[in-house]
Amino acid sequence: MKITMAQLNYHIGNFSGNTDKMLSAINEAKQAGSDIILFSELSTCGYPPRDFLEFDDFIKLAEESIERLKSVSDGIAIVVGSPSRNPVVEGKDLFNSVYFIADGDVQFIQHKTLLPTYDIFDEYRYFEPASEWGIVEYKGKKIALSVCEDIWNIGNENPLYTVCPIDEMMPFNPDFILNVSASPFSYKQAEERLNVIRANVERYNLPMFYCNHIGAQTEIIFDGGSVVMGPTGNVYDEMPYFQECIRTYDLEEVTSSPRSQTQEKDKIALIHDAIVIGIKDYFSKLGFTTAVLGLSGGIDSAVTAALAARALGGENVRCLLMPSQFSSDHSIADARQLAEKLGAPYNIIEIKDIYGAYMEKLSPIFGDLPFNVTEENIQARIRGALNMAISNKYGNILLNTSNRSEMAVGYGTLYGDLAGGLSVIGDVYKTEVFALARYINKDNEVIPINSIIKPPSAELRPNQKDSDSLPEYDVLDAVLYEYIENRRDPQDIIAMGHDEALVKRALRLVNRNEFKRYQTAPVLRVSTKAFGVGRRMPIVGKYLS
Amino acid sequence: MKITMAQLNYHIGNFSGNTDKMLSAINEAKQAGSDIILFSELSTCGYPPRDFLEFDDFIKLAEESIERLKSVSDGIAIVVGSPSRNPVVEGKDLFNSVYFIADGDVQFIQHKTLLPTYDIFDEYRYFEPASEWGIVEYKGKKIALSVCEDIWNIGNENPLYTVCPIDEMMPFNPDFILNVSASPFSYKQAEERLNVIRANVERYNLPMFYCNHIGAQTEIIFDGGSVVMGPTGNVYDEMPYFQECIRTYDLEEVTSSPRSQTQEKDKIALIHDAIVIGIKDYFSKLGFTTAVLGLSGGIDSAVTAALAARALGGENVRCLLMPSQFSSDHSIADARQLAEKLGAPYNIIEIKDIYGAYMEKLSPIFGDLPFNVTEENIQARIRGALNMAISNKYGNILLNTSNRSEMAVGYGTLYGDLAGGLSVIGDVYKTEVFALARYINKDNEVIPINSIIKPPSAELRPNQKDSDSLPEYDVLDAVLYEYIENRRDPQDIIAMGHDEALVKRALRLVNRNEFKRYQTAPVLRVSTKAFGVGRRMPIVGKYLS
Repeated sequence: MKITMAQLNYHIGNFSGNTDKMLSAINEAKQAGSDIILFSELSTCGYPPRDFLEFDDFIKLAEESIERLKSVSDGIAIVVGSPSRNPVVEGKDLFNSVYFIADGDVQFIQHKTLLPTYDIFDEYRYFEPASEWGIVEYKGKKIALSVCEDIWNIGNENPLYTVCPIDEMMPFNPDFILNVSASPFSYKQAEERLNVIRANVERYNLPMFYCNHIGAQTEIIFDGGSVVMGPTGNVYDEMPYFQECIRTYDLEEVTSSPRSQTQEKDKIALIHDAIVIGIKDYFSKLGFTTAVLGLSGGIDSAVTAALAARALGGENVRCLLMPSQFSSDHSIADARQLAEKLGAPYNIIEIKDIYGAYMEKLSPIFGDLPFNVTEENIQARIRGALNMAISNKYGNILLNTSNRSEMAVGYGTLYGDLAGGLSVIGDVYKTEVFALARYINKDNEVIPINSIIKPPSAELRPNQKDSDSLPEYDVLDAVLYEYIENRRDPQDIIAMGHDEALVKRALRLVNRNEFKRYQTAPVLRVSTKAFGVGRRMPIVGKYLS
Repeated sequence: MKITMAQLNYHIGNFSGNTDKMLSAINEAKQAGSDIILFSELSTCGYPPRDFLEFDDFIKLAEESIERLKSVSDGIAIVVGSPSRNPVVEGKDLFNSVYFIADGDVQFIQHKTLLPTYDIFDEYRYFEPASEWGIVEYKGKKIALSVCEDIWNIGNENPLYTVCPIDEMMPFNPDFILNVSASPFSYKQAEERLNVIRANVERYNLPMFYCNHIGAQTEIIFDGGSVVMGPTGNVYDEMPYFQECIRTYDLEEVTSSPRSQTQEKDKIALIHDAIVIGIKDYFSKLGFTTAVLGLSGGIDSAVTAALAARALGGENVRCLLMPSQFSSDHSIADARQLAEKLGAPYNIIEIKDIYGAYMEKLSPIFGDLPFNVTEENIQARIRGALNMAISNKYGNILLNTSNRSEMAVGYGTLYGDLAGGLSVIGDVYKTEVFALARYINKDNEVIPINSIIKPPSAELRPNQKDSDSLPEYDVLDAVLYEYIENRRDPQDIIAMGHDEALVKRALRLVNRNEFKRYQTAPVLRVSTKAFGVGRRMPIVGKYLS
């Protein structure tokens, strides 16, 4: 028996586009003589469809996609994820299902049991969990069908859940397991995913074909890395990360071969590739081709520009250099050098006169009040407005260049440097931004070395340094990581050896700046706990603030 | 037996403040000779605590609050909502529980069964549902304890759920039902809540004491309106909306009296009062006292300013009048008249020169490209930056003045008129804004009549009118309501008699402008489906866009 896996880049709500892609893959699979083709979770509508699922019309469009797939299922079985309606009045209206389509009809549907409702996931908002399990027989083989999370409660040892759906299928003696997934990227995920698949395979002694999405949907990035695993836990094949891929496998060979091969999982390389596809898909799925961003000469905007150039082509990344009286000479030189290196068009706009025009109007009101963060923010907002003017006039999307460390502590100006349609490195700590810069430079110097080695500065007042207002980034990032990603209590972080005053101040800044993060662009997610949809905090909360 | 209900305004994460409030209410109840005092759902930590619940330290603080309550439970039973830990490894870590505390100890805990996971609610993200039900006996009475949603599946007829927890308690023959709630306001909620309580009371033939939160937590407003209902369905008492209230009832009288009294539920009056407390609590819970906003002379900013003045006092609402060359004379006159009427300090800042400074820098880049939305947006962003400069210099919170209709179709400028820390009327359709203005003016003319009757205009180009780019608001609002609030399919909305081209264009605008709403301030929620946390849409979605 031959099984084709199609690891594709879907687009939420683009039913015709998604189905066309699947039809083309089915054609390819038929030509390869395949018996079964495997797609991913909610392939018809894309993942995550969020509240579109509450529209009846949206579900009808998914059903029409299933009809189109039925019409080409002669001689090949199509395994695809799509929503299905719950016929029982009690409970949620929908199931998150995997369809087994063959010979012009739906032969079997298995609903998803384990509905992730944590971090970025809201599945119980929409779906009723399965309470029945079975298998499907096809061409003499018994096949267990599963959806994503359903393989993540091995032997019911995951404390989140109380049922292990694959255990429930075992009385039917399946020959192999298929899994349709939408398993989002974090830099730890590919490794963990292999471990989970291996734990299943070893528990059941069966081969597994696991097919993931690739591509980005707003902030959520799917890395692919679909897996074919032999029954002894050997990785028979792991599909490439961040690329569409269609491959056909021989079940008998997968079952008997000791072949074992995986890909390198370097954290910074993965983050780099994830962000590049994150930018690319955000633009292409919204129908845009060109970006604009402010280049300050600092490392954050330099890394953002370099990543954008890799995603969109340097000629499509318009750079604005917007010096003020507080900008150092090298800032402009470094920024210009980078733009030229990237082949990116750039303009230099001095902001001094615009700043002067603001202050001429505000000075009579402010009177003798001293220069403070207000005047710093005006400069940042002038730059934000200029970036947006270019964006509006030429139809570019403004890329936000803030890093995760400064977003965490609120070191940024709303509507100024926090402006933008997409936050490129908002899930990358400052210490990791340096590593990304070095990675980008590994073959030749793209980012000027001066941008990397000089002390970080916002250059909004004379001789300003980030370290005037913030702890050193290596210390700060370590504390933020324990609090945000590991959700450790403040007293535990202090007990780890961090300075008590620093910990309290950092956590207070994180919690008090929730209002800024509420209004910033979606952040490309590369960690296990990104700002945005996966981290939901009350703005008026009084906790640690 | 005497029962005290304490309808209080809690603050998320402010454990000491919340507990102090409860201790004071307990003292008052003791003095009234009460046997039981009833608080609300998650009273210790405030509702909704969101991801703070994932911090062990946060749960410990809730447990410490319970300890403080135990220490004053001599002679009075305290019924209070608080999270509790799930001792079983499988399933979520927490329960959403109601504690029955008396004689220095927790006598009984009933966990919540029905965990709302829709709209603004994410309870299954954190909590495991109850699977056991009981009652508590105290001073010779049998008492059924319930948490909010647990009374909303009467006889298991709510299609969302599969269990009716109150039915499960009936075999224990309770004498009455207590409910701790956190039931958020919408202008339809008070009526619906009474119907639900009545349906329970009539089903079980028992009196019910239902105690709700009041006050706002960021965008979510609790209206109070706590209810004591006699066993025949008579409203023995309904506590006031939007006010703290502590009252003691005699159980025997409640059980036997035919007393029946409810409050008026006028939609616009309720929305008015909800927004006023929404503003007040956003400021007080963040520790601010003063607001700033831009007054254009139009109805939206006028209504926002009037509501802010009612919440904070006119002297605490700083108004900026920022005319451009496109502003009409009457705009300034109308705005000034309003500010004076409100007793609000105001400044006039002409933006022409700042606009000129921007264009001087941008013209060499733009060349011959015609005036378009870019130049309009620059004006809006100058106003945004000036508002924020005042906000930063004086520590005011900028109030956003956008209405729901324009937020829906994206008729607003990011970082310009869409700026602000709180969206005051972002859940109020334009047609309702007119009704609010008339309501505010019911006793005397606060809002200049000219601001109400003139045709809406953004005044960003010569002789501009909203109706140049948008359908008339009564038509637009009707279509938006069907799509957003009723989630009707486009073909159904057309079938209702709306123009097909208009419907398609309106829905397309709604879906394409998700990216703007993603970056706007929290919107005070007054409808059943507000923009923000209760409506989760993909930005890159291709559906109807």
